[in-house]
Amino acid sequence: MRALRIVGERQVIVRERPDPAPGPGEVVVRMVAGGICGSDLHPYPHPQRSHLDCHVVPGHDPPAEIVALGSDVAGWSVGDRVVVYFRRTCGVCVSCRTGHRNVCVNRRSSYGHAADAPGSDAEYMTVETTSLMPLPEYLSEVDGAILACQAGTAYWPLVRLGVSGRHVLAVSGLGPLGLLATLFATAMGARVVGIDPSPGRRDLAQKLGATLTLDPTTGRHADGERLGTSPTSPTPAPVAMSVHDQLRAHYPDGADALIETSGSNAAHAAIGDLLKPRGTAAIVGLGSTDFAMPLMRLVHREITVFGASIYPDTLFPELCRFIRDHHLNLAAVVSHTFPLAEGPEAFRIAESATAGKVMFRFD
Amino acid sequence: MRALRIVGERQVIVRERPDPAPGPGEVVVRMVAGGICGSDLHPYPHPQRSHLDCHVVPGHDPPAEIVALGSDVAGWSVGDRVVVYFRRTCGVCVSCRTGHRNVCVNRRSSYGHAADAPGSDAEYMTVETTSLMPLPEYLSEVDGAILACQAGTAYWPLVRLGVSGRHVLAVSGLGPLGLLATLFATAMGARVVGIDPSPGRRDLAQKLGATLTLDPTTGRHADGERLGTSPTSPTPAPVAMSVHDQLRAHYPDGADALIETSGSNAAHAAIGDLLKPRGTAAIVGLGSTDFAMPLMRLVHREITVFGASIYPDTLFPELCRFIRDHHLNLAAVVSHTFPLAEGPEAFRIAESATAGKVMFRFD
Amino acid sequence: MRALRIVGERQVIVRERPDPAPGPGEVVVRMVAGGICGSDLHPYPHPQRSHLDCHVVPGHDPPAEIVALGSDVAGWSVGDRVVVYFRRTCGVCVSCRTGHRNVCVNRRSSYGHAADAPGSDAEYMTVETTSLMPLPEYLSEVDGAILACQAGTAYWPLVRLGVSGRHVLAVSGLGPLGLLATLFATAMGARVVGIDPSPGRRDLAQKLGATLTLDPTTGRHADGERLGTSPTSPTPAPVAMSVHDQLRAHYPDGADALIETSGSNAAHAAIGDLLKPRGTAAIVGLGSTDFAMPLMRLVHREITVFGASIYPDTLFPELCRFIRDHHLNLAAVVSHTFPLAEGPEAFRIAESATAGKVMFRFD
Amino acid sequence: MRALRIVGERQVIVRERPDPAPGPGEVVVRMVAGGICGSDLHPYPHPQRSHLDCHVVPGHDPPAEIVALGSDVAGWSVGDRVVVYFRRTCGVCVSCRTGHRNVCVNRRSSYGHAADAPGSDAEYMTVETTSLMPLPEYLSEVDGAILACQAGTAYWPLVRLGVSGRHVLAVSGLGPLGLLATLFATAMGARVVGIDPSPGRRDLAQKLGATLTLDPTTGRHADGERLGTSPTSPTPAPVAMSVHDQLRAHYPDGADALIETSGSNAAHAAIGDLLKPRGTAAIVGLGSTDFAMPLMRLVHREITVFGASIYPDTLFPELCRFIRDHHLNLAAVVSHTFPLAEGPEAFRIAESATAGKVMFRFD
Repeated sequence: MRALRIVGERQVIVRERPDPAPGPGEVVVRMVAGGICGSDLHPYPHPQRSHLDCHVVPGHDPPAEIVALGSDVAGWSVGDRVVVYFRRTCGVCVSCRTGHRNVCVNRRSSYGHAADAPGSDAEYMTVETTSLMPLPEYLSEVDGAILACQAGTAYWPLVRLGVSGRHVLAVSGLGPLGLLATLFATAMGARVVGIDPSPGRRDLAQKLGATLTLDPTTGRHADGERLGTSPTSPTPAPVAMSVHDQLRAHYPDGADALIETSGSNAAHAAIGDLLKPRGTAAIVGLGSTDFAMPLMRLVHREITVFGASIYPDTLFPELCRFIRDHHLNLAAVVSHTFPLAEGPEAFRIAESATAGKVMFRFD
Repeated sequence: MRALRIVGERQVIVRERPDPAPGPGEVVVRMVAGGICGSDLHPYPHPQRSHLDCHVVPGHDPPAEIVALGSDVAGWSVGDRVVVYFRRTCGVCVSCRTGHRNVCVNRRSSYGHAADAPGSDAEYMTVETTSLMPLPEYLSEVDGAILACQAGTAYWPLVRLGVSGRHVLAVSGLGPLGLLATLFATAMGARVVGIDPSPGRRDLAQKLGATLTLDPTTGRHADGERLGTSPTSPTPAPVAMSVHDQLRAHYPDGADALIETSGSNAAHAAIGDLLKPRGTAAIVGLGSTDFAMPLMRLVHREITVFGASIYPDTLFPELCRFIRDHHLNLAAVVSHTFPLAEGPEAFRIAESATAGKVMFRFD
Repeated sequence: MRALRIVGERQVIVRERPDPAPGPGEVVVRMVAGGICGSDLHPYPHPQRSHLDCHVVPGHDPPAEIVALGSDVAGWSVGDRVVVYFRRTCGVCVSCRTGHRNVCVNRRSSYGHAADAPGSDAEYMTVETTSLMPLPEYLSEVDGAILACQAGTAYWPLVRLGVSGRHVLAVSGLGPLGLLATLFATAMGARVVGIDPSPGRRDLAQKLGATLTLDPTTGRHADGERLGTSPTSPTPAPVAMSVHDQLRAHYPDGADALIETSGSNAAHAAIGDLLKPRGTAAIVGLGSTDFAMPLMRLVHREITVFGASIYPDTLFPELCRFIRDHHLNLAAVVSHTFPLAEGPEAFRIAESATAGKVMFRFD
Repeated sequence: MRALRIVGERQVIVRERPDPAPGPGEVVVRMVAGGICGSDLHPYPHPQRSHLDCHVVPGHDPPAEIVALGSDVAGWSVGDRVVVYFRRTCGVCVSCRTGHRNVCVNRRSSYGHAADAPGSDAEYMTVETTSLMPLPEYLSEVDGAILACQAGTAYWPLVRLGVSGRHVLAVSGLGPLGLLATLFATAMGARVVGIDPSPGRRDLAQKLGATLTLDPTTGRHADGERLGTSPTSPTPAPVAMSVHDQLRAHYPDGADALIETSGSNAAHAAIGDLLKPRGTAAIVGLGSTDFAMPLMRLVHREITVFGASIYPDTLFPELCRFIRDHHLNLAAVVSHTFPLAEGPEAFRIAESATAGKVMFRFD
């Protein structure tokens, strides 16, 4: 079968690889779609030696169809449509047993992140049955690819923030994760303020429901806002306001909650000024070494900050119903789709940080 | 001035009464609209002796304009548009000081409920300044009348339930309170299932956003549901299903949360079957002596039930902004408007339990 | 082997029964201790036909030792000390997968409650491995018997109430469950007020840490209180005060939280008066048809009530450590211990509602 | 009257100053005790120009007695024992009205922190009545001084952490704040692990209830632990273990919660390793510019961090009762007491970071 491989800095190639066979408790699945996730992009510019020496198959957004069953497999059939939960966990620790498998203390390397756990940027993939989640009929293959990792990673912190129609939510970073958070939080009733330097991403956020978008780099007021959403500030804000002054021009008290998806130090530092006193920030984006913000802001405004790490698989059925019940079009965050053979170009586009979600198709 | 008075069972008359003058720390307000609330209807069929012997002016839904200031009044001016918080509280107990004034342990008789605290079914009313809440310019007088009591009473339990786009909410009873809960919970993103014997009220609930409405008395399936909201049950449910079977035909797991506004024993008893395991019910409606439900349901399904009593006044500014930000039309719950002189007819209609909100106008 | 059987109203006998053999995924355990639980006493005076016609082995408090392994059993060895989780659950519903197995929606009959699931009042018992919980070395066999059902059932609602040193906790009913709640809540730092008509049980509660005990039936002030705990009321309260007036004589604001273990209607009705405004009651005791309390109390004081149903097995390791870290002597709640052969007498004593925990020994 | 003044780096002098007179809504109080708080020590080594140019009277730990009433003062009498809440707040914002006055968005300079708000290191002090909290009879003057600032600042984050007998709490920094947190958390039932480089402070923490103390600087295992508290690790841990390895040698899963009082960067960085997955840290100590911790720890372990800023005054009555009900001896954290005239020496000792609480007496 064909599979992608990272062979150097920003060098992705397509290679042949033996077709996999399922061991006990495993199945082999055939990929029906795929996508590039932020964590796929971490090794891309600076691959570790393990990526170069071994054949690590990247990718952890796989919707797929079961094509072969290993021994001892019960409850699954060839032909089942599934999504793969890419974290491999112990199943017995208290986190695994209480719906917090995503923070399993004994977890092994994730699918797509090590030589012994090939990922989804390939035609076939071997998966332990404990990692399978059924994809409901009412969702498409593209939905499945987005659900596998990023949609859940956007949804879980919103659940923990308790986002609802009472809240103004700031979304820091409008890559695929921030765009999905915008889509979901709008369906949860929130007023969403999207923050990103890319005009194209801000445009897309507005289409997905953001009531206001802001450019954190230039201090310029962002280009638009939904009609009628901002009665307190009819005139455009002046040039060169800080992002929090811009936000407060529309929502004078600040945001109730914030989801940080960019991983940038500047975005971390701004949290305390964007939030209300006693507001809460969910930190999702990786990429910096430290999370740092002014200590006085954290303490004197009694800000709460929490980390959110992908999502517990037990949330998946709820998320599927949420998408159905709110008639959400996940595909709206997709900006590019490539066949697997064009993997190198797909990675190049995804790294540019101006695109929406970059997908693979398997024809 | 003219004011209403209850003089016997289901007997309301319009009487002249001296114009009030403000004492220290008080203002006199001129009513600009008004409404009849569920608790106005409790004494109406069975007035206590105190209602008959004294001139109790009913009414506690007053939007008004300040027309006279007592001595020692600071921070308020003649002409200010206000809403009156009808509970009279101590201001010093821990409830009052922590945003829970609605459960003040030292509260005195409420406006509209005793001879020494005349209510709003009159042309003028004397109010302590600690009971005044400013009515924002962007809200109308009718909004103000609905906000004064019922809108806050509907909003507060939804806040405590944490209702959001993740949830299926059952609204038990579709009088003005249930209709407002339907309107608000829909804006919070929830799927709302309205339950009421009155077809007219169920119709109105669907217009306000309910995705499904059910008739609890006949067991018949209710007449409609919004297109596309219920993909799991394309065909109408059969006749004579229990209300919880009807709900589960659409939402197989049951409701996540429930707000009970009817005060009926049958509605209380049904809670455990309508909710999911670990679901929560907010009890708002009065009218029965006891709240009772099967003990096995409460325990074995780990149901949570809490009482909600009007709302804390500190929530009022948030509620006003919520109405503005979601472009909600509170007047949609109004079915009748009368001049104060037609108070007797207004009470008769309001008691019929088939109407929406019954309002007064003061021309 | 020998096993108990209920053969009529208040008639328990000891019968021979074939030794069990393990099926696939099962083990056979040898009982090392046992106890009588409140729910064992429900069929005792009024056994259902199924109890009489079939050989239902009662009992669900089993600490035991594995003596035989069925096929496909991994991770367990002969000689392992275990406790049996008596609820038999599906393992796949969202409750089971998120640490709420105790409210599994697909549960089958519990061990000790049906002919196809013999209980622990026997020398041997067959158990599915998914129901096994390892008993740590630092706990005794008697600890294990108490832990299996009642200790967890007392602990879980305290966890959900968030009981800590900030709180006054009322414990309604001082049978084994209430006594264990007294012991645990004291270790959690709470001031515990125990309520029970039995002087013996009140004495025991004081020994286990209650700062005050009250007699709900006579209105008499209970006999003692720990030195120094009640500075606001140096003199004994007068005769014939209601239980809530008695409590408020010592804690003027009322209790922060309450755990109801008696199942009595009178106890339910008193909740609203014993608690502070916004206080919370956990309902654990069964035995009445309805849970009922005055609606006005529930609403106007914004009381919260929730049901708690045994405990999730995922809490078991924490509970064991809690007992160890606080040096708790569970055996202090035991008042009688019988050999299995004296089962009839053991049931008679347990039903008297004046004893502590009644245990079995297996020599 | 005499009052302290900071006149240069680490230079405190005693100066005469006019006796104050109360304005409208104010009282004058006579100090009966006092103390030095961590935030008094921030200007001490590096006073801002405003401290040098104006006569800023430091101090915000004042228990006092009312000696004069201004006009319009109701509800207070000469001779009343009070404690001063040192934050001066607006009283009308949503924080002030909902029991979160400590994060008032309109607050003015605090008592003891500006020329227009003289503090408590003086014989008399003028105070607005809205800042007075009655000191109950059952508490001493020394209690009052400790309560005014530090005791509440230690208690409030423990309340928000929900600390109880279920928890292992790490206390990072064992100055007066950390020692009080140790005392309170022990009364709340928690196992407390105290962390501080000072052997004297660690000793004191063990006397106040810590079950284990650790030295974060040398990596050496701390000297002692309470008998029987740590059955999992009978032998002393080896030299040069990291503080989190030391903690995990006793509590293998890590701490459930942590309170950070030192303000040190190294302490912030260690949080993610000391806590369990999904654990929570309360950040109280100031002194660093940034709060920073490894982003991967925050996200992958789903750690929660929140700031806590002194305490809401509405918590004061509960805190007084807590101290009474648990028979806590606040004075145990006091290591030195000086007359006001020895203020310079008192500040020198307090800054050494090896002492307990440093107090003033007024004879």
